Amino acid sequence: MIKKIDHIGVAVKNLEEAIELYKKLGFEVKGIEEVKDQKVRVAMLPVGESKIELIEATSEDSAVAKFIEKRGEGIHHIAINVENIEKALENAKNNGLQLIDEKPRIGAGGKKIAFVHPKSTKGVLLEFVEG
Amino acid sequence: MIKKIDHIGVAVKNLEEAIELYKKLGFEVKGIEEVKDQKVRVAMLPVGESKIELIEATSEDSAVAKFIEKRGEGIHHIAINVENIEKALENAKNNGLQLIDEKPRIGAGGKKIAFVHPKSTKGVLLEFVEG
Repeated sequence: MIKKIDHIGVAVKNLEEAIELYKKLGFEVKGIEEVKDQKVRVAMLPVGESKIELIEATSEDSAVAKFIEKRGEGIHHIAINVENIEKALENAKNNGLQLIDEKPRIGAGGKKIAFVHPKSTKGVLLEFVEG
Repeated sequence: MIKKIDHIGVAVKNLEEAIELYKKLGFEVKGIEEVKDQKVRVAMLPVGESKIELIEATSEDSAVAKFIEKRGEGIHHIAINVENIEKALENAKNNGLQLIDEKPRIGAGGKKIAFVHPKSTKGVLLEFVEG
């Protein structure tokens, strides 16, 4: 059911600056995309079968802007690739985990995604990504 | 040079509780190990070509204990698998990044590891792992 780490989300203040930094470390940038629903711009940096996702808020009321205000820049979430997102959400719910998204919504790359609340996962903001 | 995400480190207060939680989400536990040098106990949960590393401090003066005291449980670091750790460190240094470990030391699984300071990587504690 759990296939791989889809990506690791990193909240940054300035996407272009962050991209320059990661390029120096040897990463390549595959694509930059605006996800209006989440009020962010993201850059995907492939590494093996996974990606680093750099995330910049496009609005002060974006969850990512609030995260940075509270904790500073840094690792924001872990996204796990699952075969069937509805089943993953049902399983999480049945195990008493608190869901942020009861139903999947559309995230970066047009994929079905859903978040689990960090309160129920030892402080880890967990994202499921299907396909 | 950069091969894959080796693991994502997650700081937890109680390793056994965290393991139970991740098992419910469908993860399997491959091994539990004490890393005395870093004053931690870790559990490795393979997922695809990577792992989730749950980390519990074994001493109050462990860096992980201090992290939890300051920020609570949660994602602690990203470990990147590199072909040659000395070269990765040299490259990071040449690009002005601040290293925590100027030279590799031995981490979980007996592998050569080294950390880059989050001050120079947009708040991300980055670990290089060789091989």
